[in-house]
Amino acid sequence: NKNIQNDRKYIKNTNVRVGLPAVCFVWQIAMVVLFGVFIRYDEESDTHWVEFRRENNITSDIENDFYFRYPSFQDVHVMIFVGFGFLMTFLKRYSYGGVGFNFLIAAFGLQWALLMQGWFHSLNPETGKITIGVESLINADFCCAGSLIAFGALLGKVSPVQTLVVALFGVTLFAVEEYIILDLLHCRDAGGSMVIHCFGGYYGLAISWVLYRPNLHLSKRFHGAVYHSDLFAMIGTLYLWMYWPSFNSAITDHGDGQHRTAINTYLALASSVLTTVAISSMSKKGGKLDMVHIQNATLAGGVAMGTAAEFMIQPYGALIVGFCVGIISTFGYLFVTPFLEKYLKLQDTCGVHNLHAVPGMLGGFIGAITAAAATEAVYGAEGLRNTFDFEGEFENRTPGTQGGFQAAGTCVSIAFGLVGGVCVGFILRFPIWADPGDDNCFDDEVYWELPEDEEIVPPVLEYNNHMIHKHQEISESNFSVDQS
Amino acid sequence: NKNIQNDRKYIKNTNVRVGLPAVCFVWQIAMVVLFGVFIRYDEESDTHWVEFRRENNITSDIENDFYFRYPSFQDVHVMIFVGFGFLMTFLKRYSYGGVGFNFLIAAFGLQWALLMQGWFHSLNPETGKITIGVESLINADFCCAGSLIAFGALLGKVSPVQTLVVALFGVTLFAVEEYIILDLLHCRDAGGSMVIHCFGGYYGLAISWVLYRPNLHLSKRFHGAVYHSDLFAMIGTLYLWMYWPSFNSAITDHGDGQHRTAINTYLALASSVLTTVAISSMSKKGGKLDMVHIQNATLAGGVAMGTAAEFMIQPYGALIVGFCVGIISTFGYLFVTPFLEKYLKLQDTCGVHNLHAVPGMLGGFIGAITAAAATEAVYGAEGLRNTFDFEGEFENRTPGTQGGFQAAGTCVSIAFGLVGGVCVGFILRFPIWADPGDDNCFDDEVYWELPEDEEIVPPVLEYNNHMIHKHQEISESNFSVDQS
Amino acid sequence: NKNIQNDRKYIKNTNVRVGLPAVCFVWQIAMVVLFGVFIRYDEESDTHWVEFRRENNITSDIENDFYFRYPSFQDVHVMIFVGFGFLMTFLKRYSYGGVGFNFLIAAFGLQWALLMQGWFHSLNPETGKITIGVESLINADFCCAGSLIAFGALLGKVSPVQTLVVALFGVTLFAVEEYIILDLLHCRDAGGSMVIHCFGGYYGLAISWVLYRPNLHLSKRFHGAVYHSDLFAMIGTLYLWMYWPSFNSAITDHGDGQHRTAINTYLALASSVLTTVAISSMSKKGGKLDMVHIQNATLAGGVAMGTAAEFMIQPYGALIVGFCVGIISTFGYLFVTPFLEKYLKLQDTCGVHNLHAVPGMLGGFIGAITAAAATEAVYGAEGLRNTFDFEGEFENRTPGTQGGFQAAGTCVSIAFGLVGGVCVGFILRFPIWADPGDDNCFDDEVYWELPEDEEIVPPVLEYNNHMIHKHQEISESNFSVDQS
Repeated sequence: NKNIQNDRKYIKNTNVRVGLPAVCFVWQIAMVVLFGVFIRYDEESDTHWVEFRRENNITSDIENDFYFRYPSFQDVHVMIFVGFGFLMTFLKRYSYGGVGFNFLIAAFGLQWALLMQGWFHSLNPETGKITIGVESLINADFCCAGSLIAFGALLGKVSPVQTLVVALFGVTLFAVEEYIILDLLHCRDAGGSMVIHCFGGYYGLAISWVLYRPNLHLSKRFHGAVYHSDLFAMIGTLYLWMYWPSFNSAITDHGDGQHRTAINTYLALASSVLTTVAISSMSKKGGKLDMVHIQNATLAGGVAMGTAAEFMIQPYGALIVGFCVGIISTFGYLFVTPFLEKYLKLQDTCGVHNLHAVPGMLGGFIGAITAAAATEAVYGAEGLRNTFDFEGEFENRTPGTQGGFQAAGTCVSIAFGLVGGVCVGFILRFPIWADPGDDNCFDDEVYWELPEDEEIVPPVLEYNNHMIHKHQEISESNFSVDQS
Repeated sequence: NKNIQNDRKYIKNTNVRVGLPAVCFVWQIAMVVLFGVFIRYDEESDTHWVEFRRENNITSDIENDFYFRYPSFQDVHVMIFVGFGFLMTFLKRYSYGGVGFNFLIAAFGLQWALLMQGWFHSLNPETGKITIGVESLINADFCCAGSLIAFGALLGKVSPVQTLVVALFGVTLFAVEEYIILDLLHCRDAGGSMVIHCFGGYYGLAISWVLYRPNLHLSKRFHGAVYHSDLFAMIGTLYLWMYWPSFNSAITDHGDGQHRTAINTYLALASSVLTTVAISSMSKKGGKLDMVHIQNATLAGGVAMGTAAEFMIQPYGALIVGFCVGIISTFGYLFVTPFLEKYLKLQDTCGVHNLHAVPGMLGGFIGAITAAAATEAVYGAEGLRNTFDFEGEFENRTPGTQGGFQAAGTCVSIAFGLVGGVCVGFILRFPIWADPGDDNCFDDEVYWELPEDEEIVPPVLEYNNHMIHKHQEISESNFSVDQS
Repeated sequence: NKNIQNDRKYIKNTNVRVGLPAVCFVWQIAMVVLFGVFIRYDEESDTHWVEFRRENNITSDIENDFYFRYPSFQDVHVMIFVGFGFLMTFLKRYSYGGVGFNFLIAAFGLQWALLMQGWFHSLNPETGKITIGVESLINADFCCAGSLIAFGALLGKVSPVQTLVVALFGVTLFAVEEYIILDLLHCRDAGGSMVIHCFGGYYGLAISWVLYRPNLHLSKRFHGAVYHSDLFAMIGTLYLWMYWPSFNSAITDHGDGQHRTAINTYLALASSVLTTVAISSMSKKGGKLDMVHIQNATLAGGVAMGTAAEFMIQPYGALIVGFCVGIISTFGYLFVTPFLEKYLKLQDTCGVHNLHAVPGMLGGFIGAITAAAATEAVYGAEGLRNTFDFEGEFENRTPGTQGGFQAAGTCVSIAFGLVGGVCVGFILRFPIWADPGDDNCFDDEVYWELPEDEEIVPPVLEYNNHMIHKHQEISESNFSVDQS
């Protein structure tokens, strides 16, 4: 049938039957071996904890770090798998790919993250072992977030094998830039405005730029939402929005650190919602709201507070951050994404530029300014030292200097994202990855067994359908319609 | 095209392009200013916590209130945004409005709630500042819940600007009645049967009564569910149901208080499910279950335990409460809602009368009875004092007196709901709010950019559709069908 | 109309209008009475806690068990109601039954579980009372899980009354086998590989085997997914996957016990995802992924770690477990389920054989091996004693002996599942339960009031539909199509 053949001529070979299992198996076996060599429980998750407790005069099991961080860990875990996953179900026929590949990337990446972050941060030089606890799990989830953000820019245009390559290099680059920013530059970035969002956003954009598809319009029929797919995406949005205070506070200091971070993030997010609604309504005929804005720009407040939330930015400061970044993000969806696509040949499926790259970058600079403005009068001498960790070799660093380093850290994350992304992009252009053709992007058909999508009809309607069909046949034969 | 014009004749001007952004911006700017003037971190979220800890001999960071309440806070947060939000997606074409306006109201209301509740409860007379911590965030979420309940009665019949007005006055009224009930009358109401559900329910009903639409039947085509919209609503139901123990226990006393409240709520909810299923099945031909009952009346046990759950009502007492209120709520959906609509001209979209107003009122009285029946034999002398907070000026209050005040508190909440609702209803009748016409209620089209709702069809079907269309054109021209 | 009558001839009497309410009411009243006689608050949820604290030198309210376990309890609660519930929404027209009956079974079962488990484990011989706290609630949820797993094998083929019978006997059998395995044999099984998954799986399979329907193919039109139903099921999958670390660690020892269990489960689950994807992709033309595998086999790692996760299996050990069991589970879906159906006449709707029965059994044996291999060198003397609870009459048990008992425990759970299931199956074959006919399985129509499932169309399309209809009438009359 000619018509169908025409439709199919742009399709590349998308068979992943060898590649995908091979990568998964090789990778998982490598993980088993490397975990066997390197990874052990830390003193709080080892059966020797009872002795450790006694030796360190810890009075109660409740002071195990598990009880400080596990609830936040679970919230972060939900954000990674349900939040990011369902946020990417908005396309009418790529919901399986959105939530399913997100699942695959994260499960793949978190194992590699435990190793990479372990080597950089917690390798015991004597034993040669990395010890892990609940904070390691949170950091592994964070590390995957960078690659999931990048996936947002590529959604629908890459094969599952490519997503794993994105994750493999993404996690590796993340661990390096994180080491430079947090350890060498001694920046504070608990919620990851810089190391997660800014890096992840630019990483994804750079890859997408290299993978530009001039004929993507051939997949236009799949490039949009249907009523219920947008509602599934709202599940993702809301879980990200609700749990963002946990995301930012998950690894901040015990006590006031976690407490204050949660409050600031909560407020910034609330403020983002109002300005997003305002700009979205202003931009459309009749003041109608656009689901794309509500799903995404409302979250910008959380991204932009990733660095500064643990500082004494004050509640009104958090509101101001959310206010501004909600506006900026919505404007991004309205004007910048189309501009990027038209003039910079950059196709950004989920608009990660507006939700992660720019708010993350702004978050880094907001953090720099807030840090530079810190004073003993506000923080207290001890509070200042604790908050910025002015200890050891950094004992004499001033808030002003800290601010400079924070700003430098933001630039490092952008550089890593862009340069790393361009390199990974070129790797992904090799014609071996079974990516979809230009007319088959955003289509789950390519990588998923799809159910027959006919709704069950009650017998009466079935009967009617039958009759309509019969009637068509008759009338068609009568008029001898040309079918070419 | 005449046909279409006819369809449109009932439509009012629903343009919110000026009003909605204006309200959002003005409001958010006001919040920034007021937060700047009034709101600061409390001692547990401030960097001075380390000094506070030392001064107060607090041995560990784990005794920061954050660790007592943050997991419950996050559960409450999920209830507010996903629970209430998705519960209101059950209509076939108002799911965006349900979940989206819920999101907007709550993000708008919680900021105002922090201020209002702060002025009444935690304004430091010396510094003129309100200090906030995790308990304030929980209370702010609670405060929004009242307005979200009211929104349930109005769902589909108001504009987004009107929802914000409902929230503005709702939060204000809430803070006042809460102050009267909890502080002046010294009632206990941790889970808010009185202050949240009873108030919110009657507030919404009163508004809806004033806004009665005699021609609402013109929107009948939108007034119902489709298969998947009811499934989305079940997400809301289940999250409300599962997290209700956290809702009721979030701000009760540390230790046994939170523990007992969670147990009682858990039991009452389980009991509600069984009686709801029983009545629902009895009421329909063939014993078929009705999703409206399952989605709503199963939650009545949580509402009705809002006051008494922290008392020693005993596990069997909790089961009895759930038992009765599940029956009452389901009967409400079967008989009272239709009665209210027909004879009292009260249109209650989500049936908040049956889920919040009545079970909340009953919960208030159950609390009164349980309090009046409290004895030292059961509670212990110290336990009785702690549970009812018989301290300071209330040192000599007896359980019997307390019961009387609890009952009085319930009446106060009803009065505030009804009177406040009528006033707000009249404000909402001004013809400036861009509310939908009678034939366009329950329709997302009015305030949302909707996606083209055509499912993607594989090439073969697309081809068939093409042919059907072609054939139609031909036959239409042949028979020259009249199109008027 | 003949056509319709033919369709209906296999339908049995499915009227539950008397049976369902009767069971619910009788049951719920029995629960009220039994709770009244037996159940009270334990010392941590009673108002006397303040005295208990003082007497036992507990320094802070934070050491109330509530704060150790409540966050995990809520995660388990979500798994039971949303996880299991939505996992069973995958069928195109049985989503209400999946999530709704799951809700009913669990709410019904948890009350009975509190009593049954209480009688076996915490009946105070002096007072004759059972005292409950947060750990009891977790155990009650666990106890229901066994029956919910069994429901997975029966999904779509039983009436709601039958599901309650399954739960009634399921909970009873569970309490007995749990008592034998945990108390008499002194096995460790915190996450319930044996007592929950292995038992529940074989219980469901045995019932399903007895209830074999030779003409189930008559319901073939309902036996499959549609695009969005599979996406709803992914909500269930992800919540189970994310919260499984909480499931396994909810009742393990305070401190390192909970901490280590969460880490091991997290790793095993991640590993399962990769091997599931690999096998799923290898098995299909073009390497396409199958949603059934992704929804189910990815969870096998959590099931298989239910026993061993609290032991020092080491991180790489957890990865190996996930690796193997992901493969085994996916192979089960590919080959074993069709084999069972064809040759053993065993219809297993959700494939609980592959997700629960086999991984649970393997988990039991993995636990046995890990226990037998435990040494003081790895655990420390004190750690070994704490982990395996070698105290009291079991003081002198060696790890090797413990391993033997663990293996024996697994066999006990299989035996209870199979024998109990066969008995319950025969009870369910009495013709009094109003189960659906062979041509009406997997159809919500039978037990639910369903909404009219027509999407609302905007006026223009409505107009077009109108015209199409008109045109049909005309052409039909012209060609006088035979309608018989």
